Amino acid sequence: MAGGGRRVAGNRSRALADHVSEARIWRFLLELAQYGATANGGVNRQALSAEDIAARIHVVRWAEKQGFSAFQDEIGNLFIRRDGAEPGLPPVLTGSHLDSQPKGGRFDGAFGVVAGLEVLQALNDAGTVTRRPVEVVAWTNEEGSRFSPGAMGSSVFARVRDLSAVLEVRDRDDVLLRDALRETLAATPATTREAGGGTVHCYLEAHIEQGPLLEEAGLCIGVVTGIQGIARLTVDVVGEEAHAGTVPRRARKDALSGAVAVVSALERELGSDDDLRFTVGRFEVFPGSPNTVPGRAHFTIDLRHPHDARLHAARRRIHEVAMTAAGPCSVSVSDISHVRPTVFPDDMLRVLRRSADGLGYGAMSLPSGAGHDAMHLAGICPTGMLFIPCLRGISHNEAESITSEHAAAGTRVLAEAVAALAQE
Amino acid sequence: MAGGGRRVAGNRSRALADHVSEARIWRFLLELAQYGATANGGVNRQALSAEDIAARIHVVRWAEKQGFSAFQDEIGNLFIRRDGAEPGLPPVLTGSHLDSQPKGGRFDGAFGVVAGLEVLQALNDAGTVTRRPVEVVAWTNEEGSRFSPGAMGSSVFARVRDLSAVLEVRDRDDVLLRDALRETLAATPATTREAGGGTVHCYLEAHIEQGPLLEEAGLCIGVVTGIQGIARLTVDVVGEEAHAGTVPRRARKDALSGAVAVVSALERELGSDDDLRFTVGRFEVFPGSPNTVPGRAHFTIDLRHPHDARLHAARRRIHEVAMTAAGPCSVSVSDISHVRPTVFPDDMLRVLRRSADGLGYGAMSLPSGAGHDAMHLAGICPTGMLFIPCLRGISHNEAESITSEHAAAGTRVLAEAVAALAQE
Repeated sequence: MAGGGRRVAGNRSRALADHVSEARIWRFLLELAQYGATANGGVNRQALSAEDIAARIHVVRWAEKQGFSAFQDEIGNLFIRRDGAEPGLPPVLTGSHLDSQPKGGRFDGAFGVVAGLEVLQALNDAGTVTRRPVEVVAWTNEEGSRFSPGAMGSSVFARVRDLSAVLEVRDRDDVLLRDALRETLAATPATTREAGGGTVHCYLEAHIEQGPLLEEAGLCIGVVTGIQGIARLTVDVVGEEAHAGTVPRRARKDALSGAVAVVSALERELGSDDDLRFTVGRFEVFPGSPNTVPGRAHFTIDLRHPHDARLHAARRRIHEVAMTAAGPCSVSVSDISHVRPTVFPDDMLRVLRRSADGLGYGAMSLPSGAGHDAMHLAGICPTGMLFIPCLRGISHNEAESITSEHAAAGTRVLAEAVAALAQE
Repeated sequence: MAGGGRRVAGNRSRALADHVSEARIWRFLLELAQYGATANGGVNRQALSAEDIAARIHVVRWAEKQGFSAFQDEIGNLFIRRDGAEPGLPPVLTGSHLDSQPKGGRFDGAFGVVAGLEVLQALNDAGTVTRRPVEVVAWTNEEGSRFSPGAMGSSVFARVRDLSAVLEVRDRDDVLLRDALRETLAATPATTREAGGGTVHCYLEAHIEQGPLLEEAGLCIGVVTGIQGIARLTVDVVGEEAHAGTVPRRARKDALSGAVAVVSALERELGSDDDLRFTVGRFEVFPGSPNTVPGRAHFTIDLRHPHDARLHAARRRIHEVAMTAAGPCSVSVSDISHVRPTVFPDDMLRVLRRSADGLGYGAMSLPSGAGHDAMHLAGICPTGMLFIPCLRGISHNEAESITSEHAAAGTRVLAEAVAALAQE
């Protein structure tokens, strides 16, 4: 990732960026949005479904027309390749995913794939010869809503998970992933290659932010510093069921009151760190009868922070605070999972920042609150991500929305960065 | 409810109290507890079920053996009558109910019926001739767990509800109350009489406290001053669903946080009045996914106070506090129902207090937190209630427990009071 080469590429890519077409990107996004289109303007295109297969075929047909080759590996990751001057070199890889949530939006995942394909076309249109091959990937099953867990294709590619370990997963209709995958592979006209068989020079992923920070700041490019670590905890508060009419408050062990006190104390305690994301998303009381003092309450905590040490510290503080805040009730806190943060290397951040600066786009650095395929790629090659704004931060929602201007800006920054990296 | 008569009755009833048998009361309670006995030591004897019918037949068979007559009215209220010297006078009525919650205890309701029957037997054993008849009643469907609403038999008796209005009620298995009632009446060997056909001189109900106050005070008799009024409210907090990872706390409209803030504010605001019972028994958040900021929360408030003005004031305060406490979320508070408190007349309280004092039992005055059949009787005749302690205040629970000593003490106080009132 050297200086001289980048300067040359920078000069070239300014020309390259001019070949990025806002209208073409937008048309491609709307074409893909037809596969699984919902009545409310979103998409339901879950992994390895007929809709996902149709989107894959659409991409391969497009690639054939442009003269690019299409490959797919055993987990269904789909690669569109533009050769470089030295075809034996590991490629620059970029992309995202085509699958969606059951009530998903048109841009989560799809934007990163379309942006990558537009980069390939712009490279063609500009007549650019890159040293390295450039490949655009659509990872299988990022969402994990039909087959769990998500980020499946990238995790198998990065050898975080064994292919054999996911083949036996079933969806809610009892369909085996193995069978759905076989159908998908058979229906997609692409050459088979081994999963994770080749090395990758580096990976870049363009994605919608799924949060409000870029919009709030009035900026169109986010240079993603990493992906927050996530700790999951559950809290159980045990009191004693009692008659709402006969037992005075001082004699109660009210599990709802205890749980409310714990949540309040945690919000006071953890609210000062703006980088910490603390969410109680599920909260249940038992028996849940209006005239019975609850005997038990249960809630979940989703805790995220870009720095692992801070995440650990917050998690420990939750244990301490919860144990003392529930009055006469007893409290138990369970650690369910802890996924360490991903930190993208400075070199990759600089490539993206320079690309944005060179094109005159306002950019800011920010961590990703959501998980992405890039977190698995970061384990096997230099990895980076860029965000574009999405309306009011709404995502995983049929109302998800972006502007064509932002889509084009993100694609231009991606194009320059890819071209620079492909000269290395 | 005059003085001279009571002094005479007081002298007599001291002798009467000696005829109350702790062993006999306890045996009767355990006999009834067989009907619907659960594996955990409680009872499942819901209204108009086979178990309820069996308990009714047991009571009628007992009455036949003692030479008392048995009557039942159209709603299935069962009356066991001991004649007085002047049979044309309205009777002194005492009793409670035989039905239970699905996972109920052995003493809620049953104690009041058994205590009344023991008074009849003690009157016989003492050879006491009362001026008025004394009747023991087992009201139909006090609990309301199978057929809603509860306190059904007493409400029809007191003409608060029309018989025709409840006949079409169905249980969860779609059984019509009309059919279950017909079966019950046919199976019970008692003479039919009209519901609420006769006037009642006065009504006394003995019951377990279902709260911890007597046990805490170390006293065995509670003279019940009245039945708390009950206001029911619901609170809806509306925020905005968001991704737990991507949206920082300051940009959220977190409905769980809003609801927790409202509950905390209400607890602070309402906690100072020890007579006020404030309970949040149901609390739900939506969508209830661990990694989604809740967009909506809903909770119930059960609010009770012995004084109607204070109940109204607290209800109004809830509206005011809730509207301002939920931060960026919007809040709506709905009034679901308002049942005014019942206040028992001083004369009836004095009869019970004198009876307890005369027998040397420690007594305290207290309001009833739970609803009872007595609240309907209070509308048509002078009414009073006495409580005995129950272990740790636990009721509506298979673990419900009392001591035979307390059962006997309560029955002795009831016997003296009934005898005094029956001389009026």
